[in-house]
Amino acid sequence: MGRLTTRRQIRRVETGTEPNPQGPTWADAVDVIAVEEPLELRLGGISLTVTMRTPGHDVELAHGLLYGEGVISSAQDLASARYCAGATVDPTGRAATSEHQGNSYNVLDLQLRERAAADQGISQRALITSSACGICGTQAIADLLAGGLPDVHADQVRFTATALSDLPRRLRDGQPVFGRTGGVHAAALCLPDGTTLVVREDVGRHNAVDKVVGWALLNDAIPATGRVLAVSGRASYELVQKAVRAGIPALCAVSAPSSLAVDLAQASGLTLVGFAREGRFTVYTHPERIEG
Amino acid sequence: MGRLTTRRQIRRVETGTEPNPQGPTWADAVDVIAVEEPLELRLGGISLTVTMRTPGHDVELAHGLLYGEGVISSAQDLASARYCAGATVDPTGRAATSEHQGNSYNVLDLQLRERAAADQGISQRALITSSACGICGTQAIADLLAGGLPDVHADQVRFTATALSDLPRRLRDGQPVFGRTGGVHAAALCLPDGTTLVVREDVGRHNAVDKVVGWALLNDAIPATGRVLAVSGRASYELVQKAVRAGIPALCAVSAPSSLAVDLAQASGLTLVGFAREGRFTVYTHPERIEG
Repeated sequence: MGRLTTRRQIRRVETGTEPNPQGPTWADAVDVIAVEEPLELRLGGISLTVTMRTPGHDVELAHGLLYGEGVISSAQDLASARYCAGATVDPTGRAATSEHQGNSYNVLDLQLRERAAADQGISQRALITSSACGICGTQAIADLLAGGLPDVHADQVRFTATALSDLPRRLRDGQPVFGRTGGVHAAALCLPDGTTLVVREDVGRHNAVDKVVGWALLNDAIPATGRVLAVSGRASYELVQKAVRAGIPALCAVSAPSSLAVDLAQASGLTLVGFAREGRFTVYTHPERIEG
Repeated sequence: MGRLTTRRQIRRVETGTEPNPQGPTWADAVDVIAVEEPLELRLGGISLTVTMRTPGHDVELAHGLLYGEGVISSAQDLASARYCAGATVDPTGRAATSEHQGNSYNVLDLQLRERAAADQGISQRALITSSACGICGTQAIADLLAGGLPDVHADQVRFTATALSDLPRRLRDGQPVFGRTGGVHAAALCLPDGTTLVVREDVGRHNAVDKVVGWALLNDAIPATGRVLAVSGRASYELVQKAVRAGIPALCAVSAPSSLAVDLAQASGLTLVGFAREGRFTVYTHPERIEG
């Protein structure tokens, strides 16, 4: 279970950047590739969602995803999470037969502590989705805040500019799979001085964030006041929402944020940093938390 | 409608890469940011899905998304697509009031030519999702192919290595929003010599591909035999699936593919190219279509 990388036969082609009378050259090789596999989450036996993810830390992923969707509000709300014994495959990767089976580790059966909690959470989630999207982004943000998304205005933490500009390096240092494949995103939860508490990698950036939030939930570290969430790639509305819901007062992305990410960060009190690289970054919202 | 970019007040911070006794410097400025807004697709008045996207080419996006999900099989299957007159907001971007409204252009009402077609498509889609994900990626691919995903093995087109290695430059040349924001993905449909037929940008890479496929569908260019789909970023299972379903025999990504993307490409006959940049690229599957 939990294979992060796999190997495939590939061909590397070089054409050069200038016209080359000898034509392109190539070499066949075996390359390391990031694993992507489906994970199905079942709640009380019913399929809740399927996400394409890099295997590993699946229980954290389940906690973070359910927390982000408002289905659970603490680790205690989830009574159990176990791989479905019925989801089996031939260990060689071929389709299952009744004679020769192993666990695919791609189905997690979740049980909530109280059924009532689940119903409440799921109905709230449906409400947010449907009311948010009929109108516009501004209305979606207003609905999110009215619907119970906490805000992080009150967090008095301060981050030094030097620590923030160093986060991409720390994130990269915590990415063994990226180093071997170049094919995964990462998220890290860090202290104000940049010390990394946890780093998670995944082919999906939202999954990497869900794994980090799930880790925090399982380690009784939610709300994650005084922390900064560092992410590879861009900052979307969805990532800002996940950070704020976890009580994280700052999000630092290696690439650009979207308009709705900026607007939600502004409204919810989150310090949003983008283009963090090589000794510089851009602050989009709440710069008052950043010191010299 | 269809604003691709917006402006926000930002602060640029420079710490430098070496310790600096003067400390960091900063400057406040107005920056251009890629717009992200929700788009709700309604089918016969019922909400089908919500996607966060960059506004513009929404009708193409709807066509491509429904085609990718197997809900429609041609442009003719969609009788009409119009912005919902009821979805209104204050033109200033605040919440709607009854006295002062404008269209948010974030809800598309779609009508299928025949109701039966919709039911068939939707049930097929549900089938694929639920059977694919209980088991494993290998089984998911087998189910997809058994469930009606075409394969592109028969496409005899040949691509020159030079044309493929030049695709990232052509993609970038067709990205005005990226040039201004650095915050959007892009997809392009190209001829074997690299000539760009269409480029679409979006904060979501899957949306950019859906817009391209929708464009092809509306221009009677599906199946897109003999073409190559160029995409910024990484190549996921989902993108390979969208390309194959549109009959495109080659996918060229600027970054890494996932394991499941490679496996689906191999099984369905698609030539998968990754890490296309600066006069080199890597071929993961079906290199026989690439010539010197």
